[in-house]
Amino acid sequence: MPLPYTLLITPLAADAPDDGSWFAETFTEVDSSEPALRVSELSTQRGDGVFETLAVVDGHAQEVQPHLARLARSAQICELPLPNLAQWSAAISAAVAQIPQQGELAIKLVLSRGVENGPSPTAWLHASAATDFSAVRESGVRVITLDRGYDRGVAERAPWLLLGAKTLSYAVNMAALREAHRRGADDTIFVTSDGYVMEGPTSSVILRHNGVFSTPAPSGAILHGTTQTSLFEYLERHGHSVSYRDISVEELRGADAVWLVSSVRLAVAVTELDGRQLPVDAPLTRLFTEYLLSPRD
Amino acid sequence: MPLPYTLLITPLAADAPDDGSWFAETFTEVDSSEPALRVSELSTQRGDGVFETLAVVDGHAQEVQPHLARLARSAQICELPLPNLAQWSAAISAAVAQIPQQGELAIKLVLSRGVENGPSPTAWLHASAATDFSAVRESGVRVITLDRGYDRGVAERAPWLLLGAKTLSYAVNMAALREAHRRGADDTIFVTSDGYVMEGPTSSVILRHNGVFSTPAPSGAILHGTTQTSLFEYLERHGHSVSYRDISVEELRGADAVWLVSSVRLAVAVTELDGRQLPVDAPLTRLFTEYLLSPRD
Repeated sequence: MPLPYTLLITPLAADAPDDGSWFAETFTEVDSSEPALRVSELSTQRGDGVFETLAVVDGHAQEVQPHLARLARSAQICELPLPNLAQWSAAISAAVAQIPQQGELAIKLVLSRGVENGPSPTAWLHASAATDFSAVRESGVRVITLDRGYDRGVAERAPWLLLGAKTLSYAVNMAALREAHRRGADDTIFVTSDGYVMEGPTSSVILRHNGVFSTPAPSGAILHGTTQTSLFEYLERHGHSVSYRDISVEELRGADAVWLVSSVRLAVAVTELDGRQLPVDAPLTRLFTEYLLSPRD
Repeated sequence: MPLPYTLLITPLAADAPDDGSWFAETFTEVDSSEPALRVSELSTQRGDGVFETLAVVDGHAQEVQPHLARLARSAQICELPLPNLAQWSAAISAAVAQIPQQGELAIKLVLSRGVENGPSPTAWLHASAATDFSAVRESGVRVITLDRGYDRGVAERAPWLLLGAKTLSYAVNMAALREAHRRGADDTIFVTSDGYVMEGPTSSVILRHNGVFSTPAPSGAILHGTTQTSLFEYLERHGHSVSYRDISVEELRGADAVWLVSSVRLAVAVTELDGRQLPVDAPLTRLFTEYLLSPRD
C-alpha cells in the first residue's frame, strides 16, 4: 500500500466490548488524495479535536500505549468522548500491516468533535513518510525563546485554556515556528511571561546541568512528552539522575547541553540559543538517536 | 437550493485581474453532506487558517466589506496568501443567489493554509440556517468572566500569539463556552490576567456607563468587531458618545448596561455577570436588534 495511507475510524465508546473481533469493521481505508471530511467538521471549523503523532521505525510503531494514554488525557481535558484505546491500538496495527516495513514513517491519530451538531466524533489515522531528519540529528538546531504570553500558574487557574491537551488548535505553534525561521533560527522554545521554560511548539525540552537531566515540571501548562519520558527511563537505566522542576530561562542558557525531543524528529541538540552558542554533547546525542530508533513499547 | 449550501473556492491571488468575468469558474458547488476536504488539510490538522461568519437577512448579506477586510487582516497576521476580495465578494453573491431569500442565515468563509506541503490555500463558503436567537435577543444572557491567561500588553509583545486574527484554532473559545454552561451561565467574557475586559469567545463587548458606550480599545489582543463597529456608527448617528478604552472588570460590573454583539446572534443584553444582576435596557436592545436586522453594507 503506497503512502500516505489513511484509515477512517468509526469511534467506539471507551467501554465497548473489547474482544476486538469486530474492530476491523470500524475501519475504512480511503484514498489520501480524495476528500474524506465534510466542511462542517469541527476539527476544521474550530480546531476542535485532539491528536497524536507517533513514529513507525522499520515496521514497529513506537510507544503506542503512552501515545494512546495521552490521546485519552487530551480527550478528557477537551470533554470529548473518551477513545476506545483497544480500537485505536487495533487501528495502528492494521495500518502498520499495510505500510512499508522499512524506514521511518509517521502516524497521526486524530479525534475530532465531529461534524457540527452531529451525533458523534470523527476519527482517523493518517500514515506518511517521515521527513528525513538525519542531518539535523547530527548538526542540531538553532533555537530562539519566545514568550507564550502565559505565566507559570495559568494552567491551574484557567483549565479552559486546555494547556495540557494536544489539541488541533495549533495555529500559534505554527506561527511561532515561522517567527523562528524569520529570525534565522530552526525552532523555538516557549517560555512563560515570568521567564520559565515550557516546551517547543512540537517538542519537549531536556537540559543537562551538573550531570543532572531536567525537564520542566508537569504542571498542566505543558504536554507530557512521550519521547521525553522514554528518554528519562533510558537515562535512569544507565545510572543518570533525572529531575522534573521549574527551569528558568537563565538556567537554560547556562546548561551543559539542551535537546528538543519529539516522536518523529527524535532528540536534536540545541546548538545555539537566542544567538549564543550552547555546548553540544554529540556522542550522547547519537546514543539518544540510536535508542530512540530501537523498537520501544 | 436547500441548506446547507457549500461552495469550494479556488483562491485567486490578491492581485489577479478583477474584471470578475471568470470568477464563477473558480467556484464549485458541493453537496454539504459529502466529504469535501482531505485529511491532510492544515485547517483540520493544525487549526491553521482564518474565517469569518456573516449574517444573511432576507437575502441581504450583511457588512460584506468589513468582514472581507477582517478576513484579509487575519490572513496577513497569519502570513497566509492575501485573499482576492473581489473573488470572495463574488462568491458571497453567488451563494446568496442560491439560498433562501427569507429569514436569517449564516455564511461562513474559510481560508485554510491548504493541504500539507500543498501548493496553495484551500477556501470555501458554507451557508446554513442561523440558529433561532429571537428568544435570547429578548431575554438576554447570563455571563461569567473567565481569565484568558494573557496580560493586557501581550499582543504587542508577542505577535506570534495571533491575537488579532480570527483563526480556526478555536478550541479554547469552545472550552470557555463549555465552562460557562457548566457554571449555569450562557456565555463568557474573557478578561486579561491583570483584570481588563477583552471579548467573548464569539462576540464583542459593549457597555454603557454614564451615557457613554464603550468597548475595549483595539490593541491587537482582541478582534475588531464588525457588529460592534456597525453599532457604534449607528449610536454616533443618533447623537450618542462612543469610546474605545481600557475597561477594567470592576467597570464592567458597575455598568448601566452590557451587551455581547456578534454577526448572527446580534446584540444580546447581559442580564447577569458573575452571578450578579446587571441593569438591562430592553427598549434600546430592541432598537439594536431592529437596526442590526436591517440591510447593512
